[in-house]
Amino acid sequence: MKAISAYAAKSDDGHMEPHDIKRRAPGAHDVQIDIQFCGVCHSDLHAVKNDWGNSNYPLVPGHEIIGEVSAVGDKVSNFKVGDTVGVGCMVDSCQTCAACEEHLEQHCLNGATMTYNSKLDDGTGDEEEITQGGYSKRIVVSDNFVLKVPENLDKAAAAPLLCAGITTYSPLHQYGVKKGMTVGVIGLGGLGHMGIKFAAAMGAHVVMITTSEEKAADAKKLGAHDVLVTKDKDSMKKWRGKFDFLLNTIPVGHDVNPYLALLKYNSTMCFVGAIEPLKAVNGAYMIGGRKALAGSLIGGIKETQEMLDFCGEHNVVSEIEKIDMQDINQAFERMKNNDVRYRFVIDMQSF
Amino acid sequence: MKAISAYAAKSDDGHMEPHDIKRRAPGAHDVQIDIQFCGVCHSDLHAVKNDWGNSNYPLVPGHEIIGEVSAVGDKVSNFKVGDTVGVGCMVDSCQTCAACEEHLEQHCLNGATMTYNSKLDDGTGDEEEITQGGYSKRIVVSDNFVLKVPENLDKAAAAPLLCAGITTYSPLHQYGVKKGMTVGVIGLGGLGHMGIKFAAAMGAHVVMITTSEEKAADAKKLGAHDVLVTKDKDSMKKWRGKFDFLLNTIPVGHDVNPYLALLKYNSTMCFVGAIEPLKAVNGAYMIGGRKALAGSLIGGIKETQEMLDFCGEHNVVSEIEKIDMQDINQAFERMKNNDVRYRFVIDMQSF
Repeated sequence: MKAISAYAAKSDDGHMEPHDIKRRAPGAHDVQIDIQFCGVCHSDLHAVKNDWGNSNYPLVPGHEIIGEVSAVGDKVSNFKVGDTVGVGCMVDSCQTCAACEEHLEQHCLNGATMTYNSKLDDGTGDEEEITQGGYSKRIVVSDNFVLKVPENLDKAAAAPLLCAGITTYSPLHQYGVKKGMTVGVIGLGGLGHMGIKFAAAMGAHVVMITTSEEKAADAKKLGAHDVLVTKDKDSMKKWRGKFDFLLNTIPVGHDVNPYLALLKYNSTMCFVGAIEPLKAVNGAYMIGGRKALAGSLIGGIKETQEMLDFCGEHNVVSEIEKIDMQDINQAFERMKNNDVRYRFVIDMQSF
Repeated sequence: MKAISAYAAKSDDGHMEPHDIKRRAPGAHDVQIDIQFCGVCHSDLHAVKNDWGNSNYPLVPGHEIIGEVSAVGDKVSNFKVGDTVGVGCMVDSCQTCAACEEHLEQHCLNGATMTYNSKLDDGTGDEEEITQGGYSKRIVVSDNFVLKVPENLDKAAAAPLLCAGITTYSPLHQYGVKKGMTVGVIGLGGLGHMGIKFAAAMGAHVVMITTSEEKAADAKKLGAHDVLVTKDKDSMKKWRGKFDFLLNTIPVGHDVNPYLALLKYNSTMCFVGAIEPLKAVNGAYMIGGRKALAGSLIGGIKETQEMLDFCGEHNVVSEIEKIDMQDINQAFERMKNNDVRYRFVIDMQSF
């Protein structure tokens, strides 16, 4: 077991600092990855600040990992040294429950092991008890949870695909978004900007739905065909009942009724961000138009690989700002103020 | 045009009294039906009391109509004099919009014409402007909106199929309820009791979910395999994450979060009753388990016919209490107090 350089929060003050961690030697089914880039997800900040009340310190966040395979276990056949690979939000699951059998490891009935801040029992007895994430130089992951990254994609810009990408691709894919459909993406941040790119690449007519007019130009550059500013009552009326699908990336509780009204009959709005309570939902809107509200959580490993392959074909990556590991505290501050277009990605060669 | 005996509310005091109405002579595509039975739906009471603020008086309610064809227009080929037929909540729609083309006339983009209290323009100029419902001796309806009633079904007990039946059948059918699935029906009233019967006939393992223990025996007689009393915390825990589908028939706004917790990952709870706002919906539950909340409104005409055919095959009808037309005021009073097991049906020969 070798000391690996990383950055960790040591308490809920959220301050990140250098901290060495240990990684296990690769077991028979393990892939050892030298991390090149790691995206900075808003969840990372929630975890280091203990916003969800379950953080274990020292805590090394990071679940948008891209790197190069530096060793593989005896029984690994899908990966070889030198491959460009990715790791997302999960590093293990039971592999035997109904959810795992349906390729929905994120809903593993025995609890998936998340990439960081999750209890890990690998049976070797020589591993740290709590998983540590991608703000580090190296990671060792079971081959079932390692993704192949198409070689044509920019590695740094591909990192956020492992969380922001699959989080938005999965619902668009589940609900069959395609040419001929009008799709609204609500909120333009790390998730929303990927939602626009995916929906456009799938062939839909994409409408960016936002409160702030200033985002219109950016949304169009990302691939949106139209922009609906929700403060404009005439526009809200014009788009009433026009959407075949809405991807809602707003990260906080909010009034969903004005958005429900935008849906066509028999259509769905899917949430990927709002983990807080949603205000009084108008039951009459849902019944009257046979409308649905749904949630979606990242995606299974099979679907994540499909997403990466789709990105390779359509050349979809994130819009990123590359930072050095040493600047993570400043990046967190800027992220709190929504001052990022649209994802920070840490260059692991910086430390 | 002939005077037809009916019962109407003449103001929002909700009192029903005898009132003659006119019905048009059958046009080329019309079916004239001598009404034999009409179910009493809670919506009827809402309408006569003007609870939704859109009632037109005199108002003749009733949209669970069973009768015998007494005349047909020249161009009617599907129905003949003497046929047993039904009419549900709708009597017309544009027939040309996207929703009508998808057999979802209840979501007609130009507005479906409801069986009562709806503006009607049949172009003849000799019709009352507002539709009048089934608490009457006769009705004339466009053949597109007339349903065939299987001859093996008890006519009185079949009447509620036209609203309570299709309202519960449609979501169970849409969401693919079948053998091997565990389905919960929340609330045991006019809708819930049909939900149990349909879900059981479709082969599912059916659990009646109710606040009141006293309904357990009744639920089992109707076909429920299990009963979950929501006040029992241990039972709520036991059934957590166990349901493939929940049919929610609660007619008022309520806290949906305890029910959301009962759903399996990747499953849906569908509302058919709650037209009031739903209290703060836990977004984390929806996202975390890829769960959905959906609404459903009656069903299209094609699906209503399929439902009636299904009832013929499986001998599904409502549990009813037959009443005379003259007793409608008393029946409304009893309905307000939930004193009906499970649907009143008016015998039109009574007056």
